[in-house]
Amino acid sequence: MQTDLVAALDIGGTKIAGALVDDHGRILLRAQRPTPAKEDGDTVMRAVEDVLRELTAAPLWVRAGAVGIGSAGPVDASTGTVSPVNVPGWRDFPLVDRVRAVTGGLPVELVGDGVAMTAAEHWQGAAQGHDNALCMVVSTGVGGGLILGGKLHPGPTGNAGHIGHISVDLDGDPCPCGARGCVERIASGPNIARRALDGGWRPGVDGDVSAAAVAAAARAGDKVAIASFERAAQALAAGIAATATLVEIDIAVIGGGVAKAGEVLFAPLRRSLRDYATLSFVQRLTVAPARMGTDAGLVGAAAAALTRDRDVSAL
Amino acid sequence: MQTDLVAALDIGGTKIAGALVDDHGRILLRAQRPTPAKEDGDTVMRAVEDVLRELTAAPLWVRAGAVGIGSAGPVDASTGTVSPVNVPGWRDFPLVDRVRAVTGGLPVELVGDGVAMTAAEHWQGAAQGHDNALCMVVSTGVGGGLILGGKLHPGPTGNAGHIGHISVDLDGDPCPCGARGCVERIASGPNIARRALDGGWRPGVDGDVSAAAVAAAARAGDKVAIASFERAAQALAAGIAATATLVEIDIAVIGGGVAKAGEVLFAPLRRSLRDYATLSFVQRLTVAPARMGTDAGLVGAAAAALTRDRDVSAL
Repeated sequence: MQTDLVAALDIGGTKIAGALVDDHGRILLRAQRPTPAKEDGDTVMRAVEDVLRELTAAPLWVRAGAVGIGSAGPVDASTGTVSPVNVPGWRDFPLVDRVRAVTGGLPVELVGDGVAMTAAEHWQGAAQGHDNALCMVVSTGVGGGLILGGKLHPGPTGNAGHIGHISVDLDGDPCPCGARGCVERIASGPNIARRALDGGWRPGVDGDVSAAAVAAAARAGDKVAIASFERAAQALAAGIAATATLVEIDIAVIGGGVAKAGEVLFAPLRRSLRDYATLSFVQRLTVAPARMGTDAGLVGAAAAALTRDRDVSAL
Repeated sequence: MQTDLVAALDIGGTKIAGALVDDHGRILLRAQRPTPAKEDGDTVMRAVEDVLRELTAAPLWVRAGAVGIGSAGPVDASTGTVSPVNVPGWRDFPLVDRVRAVTGGLPVELVGDGVAMTAAEHWQGAAQGHDNALCMVVSTGVGGGLILGGKLHPGPTGNAGHIGHISVDLDGDPCPCGARGCVERIASGPNIARRALDGGWRPGVDGDVSAAAVAAAARAGDKVAIASFERAAQALAAGIAATATLVEIDIAVIGGGVAKAGEVLFAPLRRSLRDYATLSFVQRLTVAPARMGTDAGLVGAAAAALTRDRDVSAL
C-alpha cells in the first residue's frame, strides 16, 4: 500500500484540527473539536483522540505514512511533550506517545505552531523559493519560525523562531514571559490596542477595542492609532533585523490578525527596517504578507512530517 | 599526493596571518605581515600575497588541498568579496579570486572573522561537543558566529552570527552602523570605558582608560566600574537570550579582550541571562569563556575549509 498521505494535527487553545493531507498539500479529509482548554489533561487528550478517530476510521487512512503535529508552545520535540501556555492541564504532556498509541505506531513529528506555519509558507506560500526566511504570526501573541539553508529549522526542541520573546528594549515594560521589552509586549494586537487607549484613542459606538478597530482608526487618519501601529512596526523591525543579522534571512513573512491591517502596519515596518537592518548583508531584506490562510497550521504540520531532514523542493 | 593540510588566512585590520594547518588543527608553518590598512587595495593585497608566497614556497605546500580565509567583515562569500570596515582600500574587493590566482586554483572558503573564531571553538575549544552554540568576541567590537545542528552556520554571505549589531535597545544611543542600541554600542570595550568615565570613574596614574583598567577598578570595588560592566553584561545577556530564543543554542562562548575581565563580566552576565532567557527551552543555556587563544582565527579558517558541508566530528 502506498503511503502518500500524512495525518496533520493543529492544536491551539481554541480548537483542535486534524486532516489527511497529500504530498501536494491538499486536504482530503478534515476533523475538528473545540479545545476543552480549562479541563484536565486527559480530557484535552480525549478531544485529540476524537479528532484522530475520525481520521483513522476513514478508508483513506491506510495511505497515511506519518503524523505531523503543530502545537501551541512551548513544545519539546526532544521528549515529545507539550506545555501550551493556554492549556494548563498539559504540562510536559506526552503528546507524541499518546498520538502514536492511537495511530498504529506511525512516526510522529512534533513542532511548535510558529514552526508549522513557517513550513506551510515555505512550501506553498509567501516564502516559497526562499532558502532563508523568517515567518511570523502577529496576533494575540507573536510567534514565528525559520527556514535556513532551504530547510525548516525547528531546533532541537521544535521551538526555534520564537521572535515574540526576544527583547528589543532591555529596560522596557515587563513581559508575562518574565523578560522585558519583548517584541510581543510591544507589537501584539492587545498591546497595540492598549497603547492606543493609553494615548487617548476611543472606540466607536460598537465599543470595539481590538487592534483591528485601531487599524481602522489609523486608516481614517487618527494620529494616536497611527502612532501605536508605528511603535509596533518599530519593534517588529528591530526583531526582524536582529534575526537577519544573526542568521541571514532575505524575507520576513508576516501573518496573523495584526498583519490584516495591511499598509497601516507594512508601510511603517518597511521604513523602520531601513533604520535597523543596516549591515550590507541584510539590506536586501524584504517583508511580505503571509499567503496561507487558516489552514496554514494543518498544511505546515503536514509539511513538517513530509520533509523531516529533506528539502521542501523534494516534495 | 595526499592533501591532508589546508592553508589558512586570518585577515584583520592590524595583521595578516597565514599558516599551513593539519586535520588535527596543528599549525605546521606560519607567516605574517602587518596590514597596510591605510593603503590602497592592491598594496593590501600584496601583503596577503607575501604571506601566501612564504607558504607556497615551503616543501609542505604540496600537501595543501584547500584555502580557508577568515576576514574582518563584512565579507560576501556569495561573491567572494570583502569590505573590512578598518581597511578602506578594500570595498567589494575580490579576495577569493586573487587568493585562488596565487594558490594554484585550490578551492577557497571565505568566512567572516566571527564565524572563523566559532569554527575554532567548536572544533577544539569551549564549544566542542555542542551541536548548537553561539561564539562571540567582545573586544573593540563585538562579533560572533553560530553552530547549528552540529555544523558551522556561516549563512549565504558568511556573516551570520553578527550579534554585535542586533539592537537590544530600540530607542538607544546611535550606533556607527546606523541603527540604535546595538549590543556592541553598549558592551564593547571602548563603550565600557566611556560609560565608566561618563559616570565619574577616573584612571590611575598610568592614565590607562581601557576596559581592562575599568575591570581592575571593578575588582577593587569601584561602584561606577562595576555598574559599567553590569550594563555591558545586561546587553550581552539580552543579545545571547535573543539568539537562543531564535535558533536554540545551549552554550554561548565568549572570548576577546573584554572577556579577560573574568567574573567581573561573567557573574553579572549569568545573573542577567536569568532575566532574559525565560522560555522553557532556553533556560538550560550556559556561558563559558573562550579557550582558543590568538590562533583561533587561523585554526577556525582551517576548520571552515576542512568542514565545508561536513560535521566537524568527521575530522
